[in-house]
Amino acid sequence: MKTLDKSIAEGILFTDMYQLTMAHLYFRMGLHEKTVQFDHFFRSYPDYGAHKAGYCISAGLEWLIDWMREARFGDREITFLRHQTGQTGKRLFEDDFLDWLRQNGHFSSLTLRAIPEGRVVHPNVPLTTVQGSLAMAQILETPLLNMLNYPTLIATRAARIHHAGRGQLMLEFGMRRGQERGVNAGARAALIGGADFSSNTGISGVLGFEPKGTHAHSMVQLFMALGEGELAAFRAYADVYPDDCLLLVDTINTLESGLPNAITVFDELRQKGHEPIGIRLDSGDLAYLSVQSAKLLNQAGYPDASIVLSNQLDELAILQILAQIRDEAARSGMDARKVMKRLVYGVGTSLITSAGDGALDGVYKLVAVQEQDEWVPAIKMSENPVKTPNPGHKNVWRVYDKRGLATADLLTLDDENPTEMDPLVLQHPVDSRINRSLAGTAVSNIEPLLTTVWEEGNLVYELPTLEQIRQQRRADIDRLDSGVRRLINPHIYHVSLSQNLWERKQALINNFKKK
Amino acid sequence: MKTLDKSIAEGILFTDMYQLTMAHLYFRMGLHEKTVQFDHFFRSYPDYGAHKAGYCISAGLEWLIDWMREARFGDREITFLRHQTGQTGKRLFEDDFLDWLRQNGHFSSLTLRAIPEGRVVHPNVPLTTVQGSLAMAQILETPLLNMLNYPTLIATRAARIHHAGRGQLMLEFGMRRGQERGVNAGARAALIGGADFSSNTGISGVLGFEPKGTHAHSMVQLFMALGEGELAAFRAYADVYPDDCLLLVDTINTLESGLPNAITVFDELRQKGHEPIGIRLDSGDLAYLSVQSAKLLNQAGYPDASIVLSNQLDELAILQILAQIRDEAARSGMDARKVMKRLVYGVGTSLITSAGDGALDGVYKLVAVQEQDEWVPAIKMSENPVKTPNPGHKNVWRVYDKRGLATADLLTLDDENPTEMDPLVLQHPVDSRINRSLAGTAVSNIEPLLTTVWEEGNLVYELPTLEQIRQQRRADIDRLDSGVRRLINPHIYHVSLSQNLWERKQALINNFKKK
Repeated sequence: MKTLDKSIAEGILFTDMYQLTMAHLYFRMGLHEKTVQFDHFFRSYPDYGAHKAGYCISAGLEWLIDWMREARFGDREITFLRHQTGQTGKRLFEDDFLDWLRQNGHFSSLTLRAIPEGRVVHPNVPLTTVQGSLAMAQILETPLLNMLNYPTLIATRAARIHHAGRGQLMLEFGMRRGQERGVNAGARAALIGGADFSSNTGISGVLGFEPKGTHAHSMVQLFMALGEGELAAFRAYADVYPDDCLLLVDTINTLESGLPNAITVFDELRQKGHEPIGIRLDSGDLAYLSVQSAKLLNQAGYPDASIVLSNQLDELAILQILAQIRDEAARSGMDARKVMKRLVYGVGTSLITSAGDGALDGVYKLVAVQEQDEWVPAIKMSENPVKTPNPGHKNVWRVYDKRGLATADLLTLDDENPTEMDPLVLQHPVDSRINRSLAGTAVSNIEPLLTTVWEEGNLVYELPTLEQIRQQRRADIDRLDSGVRRLINPHIYHVSLSQNLWERKQALINNFKKK
Repeated sequence: MKTLDKSIAEGILFTDMYQLTMAHLYFRMGLHEKTVQFDHFFRSYPDYGAHKAGYCISAGLEWLIDWMREARFGDREITFLRHQTGQTGKRLFEDDFLDWLRQNGHFSSLTLRAIPEGRVVHPNVPLTTVQGSLAMAQILETPLLNMLNYPTLIATRAARIHHAGRGQLMLEFGMRRGQERGVNAGARAALIGGADFSSNTGISGVLGFEPKGTHAHSMVQLFMALGEGELAAFRAYADVYPDDCLLLVDTINTLESGLPNAITVFDELRQKGHEPIGIRLDSGDLAYLSVQSAKLLNQAGYPDASIVLSNQLDELAILQILAQIRDEAARSGMDARKVMKRLVYGVGTSLITSAGDGALDGVYKLVAVQEQDEWVPAIKMSENPVKTPNPGHKNVWRVYDKRGLATADLLTLDDENPTEMDPLVLQHPVDSRINRSLAGTAVSNIEPLLTTVWEEGNLVYELPTLEQIRQQRRADIDRLDSGVRRLINPHIYHVSLSQNLWERKQALINNFKKK
């Protein structure tokens, strides 16, 4: 298959086939230009098995918008659809529909509101709302979910791993283990969520980050196969990169070979007026080896040399390593806090694949249809009341308590303004008996979360830089209660409905049941 | 970020930074054009937690070759590298190296041998071997692993799910849950491994497969919001697609609403001379609903209508559904076998993300270096003897027993020919005391597995069609012992060494330890 052909699979046909069969049906029924609203939200936090997220970090919006700006039905796409046939060999899509698609098959007619990238987000809160013509809003479902689910999953995981590492430098190393070209979106999401750099060269360049990397075991092996040894390999590295000398010390034996050889080379460097960066440990008991390496480096006069850890790290592995360092450092005469302060984490598979829970369950649900300038709420009943989506137009607000910490997200009807409600009543989304009442004095701020991003084909939102997105993430996480931030068994953050929204939902459910 | 900039991240800079810092070091040391060999292999079968694979299906080679043919250091890439700086702000890569890369920075100098796509493969067997100049073979590591690990993971999962479904039609539905653009590689791998079709429109088109899909719940909801009902929605669908009518019947209530409405529409279709395709069930107790739906469809005169199941399916869910149908069908007066024969499986998240084990642990290890026309084996010692790679040049053979079933994969030295060995001794890769001796009469065939694909920049291999790859997969799986195919606790397939290879490895290890 040639590149030219393959590119069609990244354009507007990057969608599920049923979006197109439905769009065609809507066209035939004269419904295709009816104005509708879809909400995009996820239903539950990632659950990794032994641990679970208490918040997510939204990511992916900019690349979705990039895609929406370019995607349209051109000649190639129309030709492809013209050749699709059903069971009897007859064409699936008729010419008048294809003509309409050729003219109108782009996303200019849509209006997109979204919670910006880098924000803390929670289940059942619309992260994106799409308004516009039914056919194109329907076709957008799959690419929107594809381009927001995975980045949000990874930004969330990065935030957790960054938290476990107590804010020490963290590097995204997962390129070889992710889903083919998806690793580029993964690296970007990792940077949004908490990674400081990535080893992925190309995407780092695109995003304006320095790609990070030094050398692999293979370099040491090569020198050994050539009859030289680890020391010669390290010397070569120091020669070429005298001011960026970070050596992988575990190819033979970390404490007996790698570290003494690294220190020899560091001494030679220093004599030439250069300071080494540090070492990397990629196998063995990383806590024990961190303490012992720190000790040997201190004794040799390198108390500032970094110790980069890699090999199957995730938030629990890091928690365990740090706990063990706290327990064992003193026994080796070391200050645990100082050891921890020189660690750097290189995280691969667990981050790029979100090991344990490799997909966010984001969905895209029809919530309202416009009929003669009136919005009619749509609802899909579910056996599970939690899965019944909130109908119609809504706004989303974040409520901050007196300490300035986020205490709840609140969904209201479109025309409600919770800043004017005193007390503010937060209704449990399912159980009518549960609500919380906050006096005005208990609330420090109420912030709307959705921003209009794209209006009738125009970008009406200034895309923040990646650094601004990262700053937003830091600010939002700082405003979470520590119980919600906890890595294991986090507190459940409240996502509530206004009483009016709750009542509208009940009325619709009752009406639906009567039918 | 604009598309133009982003494309650089899919070219030759789609690699880890340390490959480039090492390549530069090799250049400085005059080693960059030294001829070396790397082996690519995976260490263990995917382990999903409650179940585990007993074999894998290789996939990804064609797209890797597509990429290798195009990837090279052009002006953009060189400019990017020229601007990379280290800690002190000095450039990381010097001009003479960049000049060399501009001239030689492509994969024409390499020779690639590989086990073709669609073949059953096992741990510690080289799936790909790369020979050629050190610098470029090193840079290839990350993209090669990226483009082979994930497809092999997904083809493997697809084979398992297909097996669980007893060969019934299986559809790949995971596009919205995978890793962004990686879902295209995932869909292709799923088709290689066992999926018959995908819902992913674009990539299906590229691969020459019909994309599959009908309609979502949102279509029914839309009609309801417009004051019409499920029946009107179904009628609209049947009107537009009279010969392709497959209806999703669980938006309201499967047995009380969806199915009776579907049957009404099917009757109307039949009066107009069309036969319906069937129904889809996407929630609830899929086993129970399959039996009841089959019963109602039979009673209405549609014994051939398909029943498509979706919603969180994987191999265990399918096993459970089929077990329950076997247990319960008779109670409803139904023949379980006939119910099972009309099922179709739509599989989403579990397949595209390989839920439970989201990454294959494929690695790329330096195994030999050429010195004055002699190949010197390279070895990396590991605390874990299983992780010590097999050194030097090797061949890979599959040994078939008298029944024609694969009984072992055998790694030999390059110049050994196991077809001439009688008896054939299969040495356990780690434990010297364990070996198996096969008399010539016990062996029906010995087949070499590696093929030369790419030789000094030329494709010397006729790329099979996707249909041929699928046929290869079927043939290979048919030649597995049923114990190895088993979904839970499979037998361990033997991967053995020839005695000569085993002895070479031991000699190297002993030599290494002496040093």
